[in-house]
Amino acid sequence: MRKLKVAMIGGGGAVSFFGRVHLRAVSLDGTREVVAGALRSQPEASLEAAKEWGIEGFPDYHSMIAAWQAGKLELDYAVVTTPNHMHFAPALACVEAGLPVLCEKPMTMTVDEARQLARRVKAKRLPFVLAHTYTGHPMMMLAREMVARGDVGEVRKVEAWYTQGWLATPLEEGGQKQASWRTDPKRTGISNCGGDIGTHAFMAATWVTGQPVKKVSARLNTFVAGRKLDDDFNVMAELKNGGTALITATQIAIGYKNDNGFRVFGTKGSLEWHQEEAERLLVRRGDHDETYWLGGGMPFFPASVGSYLRVPAGHHEDFFEALANLHTTMERHIRRRRGEKVADPFPHPGVDEGVAGMAFVAAAVASSRQRGAWVKV
Amino acid sequence: MRKLKVAMIGGGGAVSFFGRVHLRAVSLDGTREVVAGALRSQPEASLEAAKEWGIEGFPDYHSMIAAWQAGKLELDYAVVTTPNHMHFAPALACVEAGLPVLCEKPMTMTVDEARQLARRVKAKRLPFVLAHTYTGHPMMMLAREMVARGDVGEVRKVEAWYTQGWLATPLEEGGQKQASWRTDPKRTGISNCGGDIGTHAFMAATWVTGQPVKKVSARLNTFVAGRKLDDDFNVMAELKNGGTALITATQIAIGYKNDNGFRVFGTKGSLEWHQEEAERLLVRRGDHDETYWLGGGMPFFPASVGSYLRVPAGHHEDFFEALANLHTTMERHIRRRRGEKVADPFPHPGVDEGVAGMAFVAAAVASSRQRGAWVKV
Amino acid sequence: MRKLKVAMIGGGGAVSFFGRVHLRAVSLDGTREVVAGALRSQPEASLEAAKEWGIEGFPDYHSMIAAWQAGKLELDYAVVTTPNHMHFAPALACVEAGLPVLCEKPMTMTVDEARQLARRVKAKRLPFVLAHTYTGHPMMMLAREMVARGDVGEVRKVEAWYTQGWLATPLEEGGQKQASWRTDPKRTGISNCGGDIGTHAFMAATWVTGQPVKKVSARLNTFVAGRKLDDDFNVMAELKNGGTALITATQIAIGYKNDNGFRVFGTKGSLEWHQEEAERLLVRRGDHDETYWLGGGMPFFPASVGSYLRVPAGHHEDFFEALANLHTTMERHIRRRRGEKVADPFPHPGVDEGVAGMAFVAAAVASSRQRGAWVKV
Amino acid sequence: MRKLKVAMIGGGGAVSFFGRVHLRAVSLDGTREVVAGALRSQPEASLEAAKEWGIEGFPDYHSMIAAWQAGKLELDYAVVTTPNHMHFAPALACVEAGLPVLCEKPMTMTVDEARQLARRVKAKRLPFVLAHTYTGHPMMMLAREMVARGDVGEVRKVEAWYTQGWLATPLEEGGQKQASWRTDPKRTGISNCGGDIGTHAFMAATWVTGQPVKKVSARLNTFVAGRKLDDDFNVMAELKNGGTALITATQIAIGYKNDNGFRVFGTKGSLEWHQEEAERLLVRRGDHDETYWLGGGMPFFPASVGSYLRVPAGHHEDFFEALANLHTTMERHIRRRRGEKVADPFPHPGVDEGVAGMAFVAAAVASSRQRGAWVKV
Repeated sequence: MRKLKVAMIGGGGAVSFFGRVHLRAVSLDGTREVVAGALRSQPEASLEAAKEWGIEGFPDYHSMIAAWQAGKLELDYAVVTTPNHMHFAPALACVEAGLPVLCEKPMTMTVDEARQLARRVKAKRLPFVLAHTYTGHPMMMLAREMVARGDVGEVRKVEAWYTQGWLATPLEEGGQKQASWRTDPKRTGISNCGGDIGTHAFMAATWVTGQPVKKVSARLNTFVAGRKLDDDFNVMAELKNGGTALITATQIAIGYKNDNGFRVFGTKGSLEWHQEEAERLLVRRGDHDETYWLGGGMPFFPASVGSYLRVPAGHHEDFFEALANLHTTMERHIRRRRGEKVADPFPHPGVDEGVAGMAFVAAAVASSRQRGAWVKV
Repeated sequence: MRKLKVAMIGGGGAVSFFGRVHLRAVSLDGTREVVAGALRSQPEASLEAAKEWGIEGFPDYHSMIAAWQAGKLELDYAVVTTPNHMHFAPALACVEAGLPVLCEKPMTMTVDEARQLARRVKAKRLPFVLAHTYTGHPMMMLAREMVARGDVGEVRKVEAWYTQGWLATPLEEGGQKQASWRTDPKRTGISNCGGDIGTHAFMAATWVTGQPVKKVSARLNTFVAGRKLDDDFNVMAELKNGGTALITATQIAIGYKNDNGFRVFGTKGSLEWHQEEAERLLVRRGDHDETYWLGGGMPFFPASVGSYLRVPAGHHEDFFEALANLHTTMERHIRRRRGEKVADPFPHPGVDEGVAGMAFVAAAVASSRQRGAWVKV
Repeated sequence: MRKLKVAMIGGGGAVSFFGRVHLRAVSLDGTREVVAGALRSQPEASLEAAKEWGIEGFPDYHSMIAAWQAGKLELDYAVVTTPNHMHFAPALACVEAGLPVLCEKPMTMTVDEARQLARRVKAKRLPFVLAHTYTGHPMMMLAREMVARGDVGEVRKVEAWYTQGWLATPLEEGGQKQASWRTDPKRTGISNCGGDIGTHAFMAATWVTGQPVKKVSARLNTFVAGRKLDDDFNVMAELKNGGTALITATQIAIGYKNDNGFRVFGTKGSLEWHQEEAERLLVRRGDHDETYWLGGGMPFFPASVGSYLRVPAGHHEDFFEALANLHTTMERHIRRRRGEKVADPFPHPGVDEGVAGMAFVAAAVASSRQRGAWVKV
Repeated sequence: MRKLKVAMIGGGGAVSFFGRVHLRAVSLDGTREVVAGALRSQPEASLEAAKEWGIEGFPDYHSMIAAWQAGKLELDYAVVTTPNHMHFAPALACVEAGLPVLCEKPMTMTVDEARQLARRVKAKRLPFVLAHTYTGHPMMMLAREMVARGDVGEVRKVEAWYTQGWLATPLEEGGQKQASWRTDPKRTGISNCGGDIGTHAFMAATWVTGQPVKKVSARLNTFVAGRKLDDDFNVMAELKNGGTALITATQIAIGYKNDNGFRVFGTKGSLEWHQEEAERLLVRRGDHDETYWLGGGMPFFPASVGSYLRVPAGHHEDFFEALANLHTTMERHIRRRRGEKVADPFPHPGVDEGVAGMAFVAAAVASSRQRGAWVKV
């Protein structure tokens, strides 16, 4: 079987955490490989980084896309993993050139950009996957399927949260890179906490339930003195079906690392998931609790999820495998377009979810500025 | 050591759950005993119930209080555990007569009644304990002490919740007693979910942190068709020190029984507690999590809490012991007034907290009716 | 309803932990009360302690029994909670006089004593309850019922353990009272760790499964230098039905407080319980795990257990309530003998289990001395 | 950076679970790639499988090794992942040819073979890694380092277990492949449960503590009628330092999937780890429990472990990453031999541990046949 050829845009900097993560997610299954990259914004640094990675280097993404269009470079899709404020331009450039994109979140800096990108992706009929990593986790996929097939009945309420503590102190003042760009409006946009992790909570609330958010009432806080953007993000939301969502995120909860999760309460039952204990899904339908553990061969996994599982029950898949599953979804789209027989790609987040996420954060910021007035998304 | 003599007002009905609970909480330590009661609203039923309990019966609380005042009955304090809408009158009657009261929550039906009762209790300088059971749990007491002594620094945010599922269907239509009175505005007042369990979450948020709520923005839902009061209660609150509290409660989360708990995020650390795993308190101050388990002899318990512990580490105390601790607090107040040497009573909730709880629910209901407008408490 | 009158033998010393525990367990339900006691071995101290407790005091248990026989003292049963080496004599004295006994474990110091006591109890047809506290916990009772009614099929294997750490250092050298008598062969007998907590693990293994132990192969260790008795106790056992039991206990596991629990593996399913998370029972019968939580009104509790529950689901009962359940069993036996209508007493451990526990420890000690040779129980 | 070239021996069959697992573990980091394989025992099937994998195929491992020796194939190391009874021959062939080997466990079928292989590996001074997957998990590596640097003091006792339920019924009678070869003495050797998973428990007990097992007393059971080998494995062991180890494994615990774990009790503290909750290590040194979570940047990871971590704290690594870490250890050995600057390889299990594992199982089988007599390892 021919391996898919993947180009990487961004991800080569010393401080880039996600460049290597995507490299691993691409590589994991042995069916895809990173072959080319415009890994950094400076041309020379970009070429150097590519050499270090052992891939074909380009000074910038324009020249890489041009090489592909000229038939000098074989590519199946590109991964955009530049800093947040530089997602839009390369993603759009790839799309205009006809190259499928797996894009880091947030999809863009503004809602307008997001809408523009979505329009072009649809016009070009291209596969597009948004890298909300945890949506690739089998237990989160299972949760979505259980809601979709009616296991919990009509959704009444959903709680989704993302609790971290690493920004409880003014880390950015000491020059810590991750903290610096995240708390800088120029590089991050209108929201730090909401955009960075609130969107993950938003995705859990809406993608798992299939219920879009209609309007929001928000309270954003900045607890660390001198910080220009929010480090705490609290949203009460009304869902399309009239249900309620509580979507919260914080970066000031000392000692909490990545406490992301959700609870769904429906007319027939409840679901609960915690990213830090990702290998299990809690299901409540009656008198006792049910715990579903990750792993292949379990009958409670529908084929749509089961086809993504790599190991039998009891062996767990986690962060890298979840992200790799998003790449698998891209791979399935591409192989299918080529006429190869592959299992169905899962409906992972794409441009529509990207637009929704941007609009959600914008509405939350607007609501918070109006002291919590309800704002339409 | 002479046992304290306790009178019970209410609690004798076949469906009364809390009458027997208080009987056990009074009896547990062997230092207090229930000796008299006006256990039901109908005089004959009241006398009959007392006979069944093996205590001195009275047709109503008036005659019982009168007997005490006349020196015909020895009493140290009364427990008011009548249905919610009948707390105020007997509590006030006891107070006016000079008899200390341990009163079930909610303290009254209206904020005005609560304020009136508080004024009289203070004028009479009487001990008064409000039966928020979980505030008597040693781990919740420890949490309060840790916040008070600065272990987590200044409180920035607190989350408190109470998640139940028993009212996810219209149980009251089938005549289930507990569901019927709780969803009946006449017997319950302006809020079902908020008043019944939202107040527990409120107490966790404010009593543990020592931070009163200044104003609230609320969204109350009624998910079960035909129900007249809220069965879902969501409040965003501003604390006195400018911090934020998320106070939520729901009765429609199928399969959840008594998931009450809180998380406190301060400038130096975090605390987390779950009533369904009450024997442990999670403390986070740095790189690893710390789990504190219940039990005597552990140096992390200050004397103020340690003096309430009944067993060495590893043996757990739970619901009955927590409620008994509130009775112990009442007992210490009374013995101290008599000049006996006893350990310090813990600052468990009293009339002030009762007023605050009533005002909080009233403000939340008002805010929800104004689509979430911020309302002062 | 007339309260049962209870006499206490032992339990009055300053260092006695279990005296007060039994007082609370007797008192909890308001249907029993401690009225008399021979609380200490020294006559004067005994009388003084009784005064402090507010009960009728006796210089020794002989005089107390005599007073009862003479009709000068009303009693329904006695609690024997003297130091371990002094259980036999007072228990036998009560039995000979016809007074039912709830006796602390270990029942006696030797197997012979145990057998003698058992014979007399049976000859007298007296109720006799052995205070293995956790057997009174509703989840452990439920486990026994589930095994008995075939929920897990035929038992193949059972693991039972009790892990503590408080004796990891030579605490007894500093004069700590609890450590001193437990590690002293004169007051404790042939085994410290096995007799003190190994018997709890033994009871979990055998009482829950209904499978007696036929023979054992044991390895006892003394890890703390200078100690005369075992502080670590490991037994491989063959059950009556041919199954295997692993019964282990240790006191040198630093940081572990009361990690007592069991796992039962049958031909149809598995059960798992941990005393430190006593409010839940884990049941595995297929692809997912089931968690059963404590609390009244749950249909998975048979009436035999449900009739012991004091609170609705979600409110937990723990240590004191478990011990109180053993007193409730005694109470039911006694009330039934009086012709009162009461629910069925649960088959909690009695003299037969007491004999079995003594024989088990004796066989384990013998096996260990023979380097693990299989010894019949 | 040049990618290491890896050859795969075995792993290509439709039922082979671990072939694909090693492919992924090799591929994950983008620094190694599988380039060649003799994937099946039948030459034609082998070539076909290689085509499907997109690698260079060989009819058998002999020809593959020959091609490498002839300079026609570039290789850095081989992975042996044939059925258990066919590990020895190809591993030895590689070693004799000078090709480093990462070998699946059990290393061989007999102790003699294991010793022979170990001698040749040492004579050739070749890197050799034994694929005990979980020893590659960072939390298990951390546990080993903590014991080694004295965090828990001298080891007194260790408990290690592996609990599964998939063989609770005679699955092999239905022809299930995994069950068939595992319960077949010809393909599995003298022990099923002990060899398959008891060795993992053994490795946890000895590799984590650094304490070899000196002698064992064992009880092996076969609970499923008609089965020829053990499906339940219980060993009491004496460690080199005089401590005790309880090493148990079972395949008949219905509903248990991969409950592998260990507890270490030392003179200064305790460690506890559960594979099904692999992201955390429990540390007990005093009054409260400490929970260490997986993830980069945490100061409690020494550099020896930290250099293996791929993600910041809160993002978890699991099964594939653990196995990939064993490949990383092999990679570091190889790069270092080539003079490249790499971090230190961790002391993961190699031939010595392979010999010890084989000897342990052989001694356990012998002891069980002698009714638990102590047998030297």
